[in-house]
Amino acid sequence: MTTPLNERRIANAIRVLAMDAVQKANSGHPGAPMGMADIADVVWREFLNHNPTNPQWANRDRFVLSNGHGSMLQYALLHLTGYALSIEDLKAFRQLHSKTPGHPELGYAPGIETTTGPLGQGIANAVGFALAEKTLAAQFNKEDLNVVDHFTYCFLGDGCLMEGVSHEVCSLAGTLGLGKLIAYYDDNGISIDGEVEGWFSDDTEQRFKSYGWQVLRVDGHDTDALRAATLEAKAETQKPTIIICKTIIGLGSPNKQGKEDCHGAPLGNDEIALTREALGWTEGPFEIPADVYAAWDAKAKGAESEAAWNAVFAQYQAKYPTEAAELLRRIEGELPAEFIAQADAFIAETNAKAETIATRKASQNTLQAFGPLLPELLGGSADLAGSNLTLWKGCQGVQDNPAGNYVHYGVREFGMTAMANGVALHGGFIPYVATFLMFMEYARNAVRMSALMKQRVIHVYTHDSIGLGEDGPTHQPVEQIASLRGTPNLNTWRPCDTVEAAVSWKSALVRKDGPSALIFSRQNLPFQTRTQAQIENVAKGGYVLAEEKGELKAIIIATGSEVSLAMEAYAQLEGVRVVSMPCAEEFVKQDAAYREAVLPAHIRARVAVEAAHVDYWWKFVGLDGRVIGMTTYGESAPAKDLFQFFGITTEAVVNAVKELTA
Amino acid sequence: MTTPLNERRIANAIRVLAMDAVQKANSGHPGAPMGMADIADVVWREFLNHNPTNPQWANRDRFVLSNGHGSMLQYALLHLTGYALSIEDLKAFRQLHSKTPGHPELGYAPGIETTTGPLGQGIANAVGFALAEKTLAAQFNKEDLNVVDHFTYCFLGDGCLMEGVSHEVCSLAGTLGLGKLIAYYDDNGISIDGEVEGWFSDDTEQRFKSYGWQVLRVDGHDTDALRAATLEAKAETQKPTIIICKTIIGLGSPNKQGKEDCHGAPLGNDEIALTREALGWTEGPFEIPADVYAAWDAKAKGAESEAAWNAVFAQYQAKYPTEAAELLRRIEGELPAEFIAQADAFIAETNAKAETIATRKASQNTLQAFGPLLPELLGGSADLAGSNLTLWKGCQGVQDNPAGNYVHYGVREFGMTAMANGVALHGGFIPYVATFLMFMEYARNAVRMSALMKQRVIHVYTHDSIGLGEDGPTHQPVEQIASLRGTPNLNTWRPCDTVEAAVSWKSALVRKDGPSALIFSRQNLPFQTRTQAQIENVAKGGYVLAEEKGELKAIIIATGSEVSLAMEAYAQLEGVRVVSMPCAEEFVKQDAAYREAVLPAHIRARVAVEAAHVDYWWKFVGLDGRVIGMTTYGESAPAKDLFQFFGITTEAVVNAVKELTA
Repeated sequence: MTTPLNERRIANAIRVLAMDAVQKANSGHPGAPMGMADIADVVWREFLNHNPTNPQWANRDRFVLSNGHGSMLQYALLHLTGYALSIEDLKAFRQLHSKTPGHPELGYAPGIETTTGPLGQGIANAVGFALAEKTLAAQFNKEDLNVVDHFTYCFLGDGCLMEGVSHEVCSLAGTLGLGKLIAYYDDNGISIDGEVEGWFSDDTEQRFKSYGWQVLRVDGHDTDALRAATLEAKAETQKPTIIICKTIIGLGSPNKQGKEDCHGAPLGNDEIALTREALGWTEGPFEIPADVYAAWDAKAKGAESEAAWNAVFAQYQAKYPTEAAELLRRIEGELPAEFIAQADAFIAETNAKAETIATRKASQNTLQAFGPLLPELLGGSADLAGSNLTLWKGCQGVQDNPAGNYVHYGVREFGMTAMANGVALHGGFIPYVATFLMFMEYARNAVRMSALMKQRVIHVYTHDSIGLGEDGPTHQPVEQIASLRGTPNLNTWRPCDTVEAAVSWKSALVRKDGPSALIFSRQNLPFQTRTQAQIENVAKGGYVLAEEKGELKAIIIATGSEVSLAMEAYAQLEGVRVVSMPCAEEFVKQDAAYREAVLPAHIRARVAVEAAHVDYWWKFVGLDGRVIGMTTYGESAPAKDLFQFFGITTEAVVNAVKELTA
Repeated sequence: MTTPLNERRIANAIRVLAMDAVQKANSGHPGAPMGMADIADVVWREFLNHNPTNPQWANRDRFVLSNGHGSMLQYALLHLTGYALSIEDLKAFRQLHSKTPGHPELGYAPGIETTTGPLGQGIANAVGFALAEKTLAAQFNKEDLNVVDHFTYCFLGDGCLMEGVSHEVCSLAGTLGLGKLIAYYDDNGISIDGEVEGWFSDDTEQRFKSYGWQVLRVDGHDTDALRAATLEAKAETQKPTIIICKTIIGLGSPNKQGKEDCHGAPLGNDEIALTREALGWTEGPFEIPADVYAAWDAKAKGAESEAAWNAVFAQYQAKYPTEAAELLRRIEGELPAEFIAQADAFIAETNAKAETIATRKASQNTLQAFGPLLPELLGGSADLAGSNLTLWKGCQGVQDNPAGNYVHYGVREFGMTAMANGVALHGGFIPYVATFLMFMEYARNAVRMSALMKQRVIHVYTHDSIGLGEDGPTHQPVEQIASLRGTPNLNTWRPCDTVEAAVSWKSALVRKDGPSALIFSRQNLPFQTRTQAQIENVAKGGYVLAEEKGELKAIIIATGSEVSLAMEAYAQLEGVRVVSMPCAEEFVKQDAAYREAVLPAHIRARVAVEAAHVDYWWKFVGLDGRVIGMTTYGESAPAKDLFQFFGITTEAVVNAVKELTA
């Protein structure tokens, strides 16, 4: 430590705000903000290129607090540097409707780039930011004009490094050479259970060198060393850098620093008084001296930075007007003006072709049509490109071409998905990522985070049921679709044929306020004939695919591969309609009249059929209905044997309807 | 390579069986078995201590094929060494009801120690096996007599090493010094998308050294080198060893070896003929010469090994009869004879105490009572011991005491859970593992694997709803409970008070054929008064907690923290009963008469209340009922504000009942 603690008034502003806010809220994590205050001082006052008065400035450096429980560090920084986050907002830390929730949440405080808290995902988002920056830069920068040119800074802790997702994304970041990613590891030797040596003894330097990172080591309270290391990190353009910062958790608290006690609980009023003394901090709670505010204030510098970039961008616009317009469009997240019409034309063409193919193949055909229209697509798969069918002819891997549009993520489902969240948050791209539906589970919490953050991430999941056949129960989804449907703000599509597959892609692409999961079959699915009105209704999530012959007595509801069973049953029955429900979440958002027209309330003879867990469907069939589906795990066998064995057959549908209407 | 391919008849038996079986099944993965055949030759013929005629021999070495798609490697080995797996079984590869499913599945072929296929989890199971062995050895071995003394061998591939879970468990294996774990990395440079260099460029040697492993490198086709490396691995007792084996995927196939083409598809009849030629293999499909069978046959050697161990164990029994009986009991997985009575006494005592505490605290109290009775408990938490309340007074961390009964897993939810699966599979232990309910999602697929494999793993999840308060939506479960309930063969308990919490633990402990998830509150929950009959009904998963006053008109169904709301509503209503349903999965297994007695079919005025996603409950309330719960994400605020804000209140329950019965 180069400067005595009581002379670090600027950094100490973070320490007191953190301990005071946690105390006032009577919950929270003071340790990390107090331990990382000196690192934050150097990064935020000397390096971070941002404009507090315009948090949306496209070329800002991105900052991610991967150890999100230390949220008061970020709130203090946003407040002190001049964002629209008042001292009153800090006083409302962790209260309902405040801008300062317990963890940094996107959309609450200005300047929060991503929601963090679930450990390891912040660094994964940061890798996504850095990948987006590098790819966007390669796509748009010109030799004489760099319009995309920023760093991504990430703070992280022991927890992030223990989590497996950190391995996935840091390994890939090294391979992809994301040189503008700079991570600061808060190496304080403490996690919630105590001193980490009993459960975390990695040589982190060696680990990150194995990934191809530049690794630097500093005393995390030595601002000169931090400055030098950051300069070295910025100078290394071919490798990401991690700066291992040896720190003391809760630095400043005489009795609790260096111990797990200060990790996740208020210090207490007595200890706060002692800490104030140790810090030489004479002001009361939430009082910051004017000179300290002045030292932190980044508004003027930020406005200058943005103005300088604006000047560069103006030159770019003058010289490359098409690219400039395209870049602005992509940053805004607007689809090309003609896209809707082109998509509808493709859907009509698909309908005319009437192909019986696997929906994963229908998905690829759709990508082949939409891909050339949407340069913002940044696709990928977790080492299943040839199975997920996520490559289209215009795809180029970013590992070979930095301006490419496809990422071979390797066998890293969680890392892929959390990176895609970062890519979407960065702007300029619509990421789609793919794996088998079963291995969505490896990425489960990142899928949720895309929905919580309302990001347009398209999750492509193929091999959607026992229909995948011989690979057996470890690979056959049962409960996964219901889990996705229960995820607030996620749209889950399970199309039954080429037309529904194309509509599901269109719907996912036009949806700006949340992610979609597109679930496709491995096996061929029969094409269904539709009128134009029916085609238009697909986007409503549920619609009458086959009108009843005679008076309506029963309804069969089906999705995906089971729609054809429902249609075969329909052919054998009277007074029965078939409702195809590719996206139940969209269907329930329709107005009551539409829903009633599709599923009249008085018809209680209802049979749902889906090769997935039955429990989701009671919502639509009620106590008097039947669900034909799975209640156990699958088996390894050819798909046709499995549908027979598990009783998901046309005959079962027919019998169920007959029993209910007998 | 020391020996020409056509002179490796013994190893080539694996190659031909793999390619022939995959061809016959018309699906599967020939590449890994053909590439790892020489490694398997050395490990299985020279080192693996096992007895094909008794796959359950307690002291056998454990073998895990973490790259489970290479299942034909393991089936070939089991067949050739003399397990009850016939050549007809191999011909039925990947067919319904065969012993040889697409991936190795526990309970199908004898000698399969764990179900693999989901990448990275096999090595995690293997770390669990090695931890179980080390801990059981420390608990039972005597200076003069080692009755627990075996190695764990694991084969793994690039996919396993890319998966994050491999980081979690290999890091911890290094820290815990699991010296009897030996992993063979099939370093063939190929994954499904092609040559891995574009997406996987880790220096794996350096990576594993950073974890504290011994790392050896060999030509994976050089049997002398493999032998020497294995000896070196066995000699290193303080560190796990990984042997990086440079191999050629699909070795023997003239046109496909070394390429991704042979990874996951049949070679084709022409290529198989060419491969036979290259291997100098003149026999037809599924024909193995007698001398090759003889060279593989491990039955005599295995019987000798087991007999030798039996002799040691007989000495142990003579000298340490109590320990011997206890070890046998634990290996059998039988609870102590007196446990049920003791548990029931504790439940009665808990009932008498009538405490209003958090159910996580009630869980800890139960552990404090049951822990001393059950030395087979091996507990743990993903760095949340003090929050999950999973430590009881008799806990000792295995990092300090190898004979301990608690694992500080670090922030590694997925690794923890997959390791616990290995611990349970090993035998001798009942593992319980804990994290916040939300971070179950990080471990999601390992939870599923415990259920698929029917293992007695107890998953403890605390902080179960918006009731956790200030940490906000990233930490507040919504859709997680429904996801668990949809997992076949998993019992999900959400107890409402101390008594239900104790019963849930008892139920999870006595259940031998599957895992349980125990879901506990952060906040205090009021004690509910019960008769003895009601206490006995708790284990049925759902029961009438409060009988209706007057004629039954409506039913309120509740779980966990919402039972008290239901009871408060009950106090304000007539003709209403309250059903507490701590475990819906157990309830639906009860006979029809019991279920009808609890939920009479004709009562359609039904209100379910649970601070979780509403969709699960339509199954019980139907189209005419109401569900009070969550449909969105939570918020950061004190818990009481959140229940109010989201309308999960007594008033809402009362109003819903009134509306339905109006």
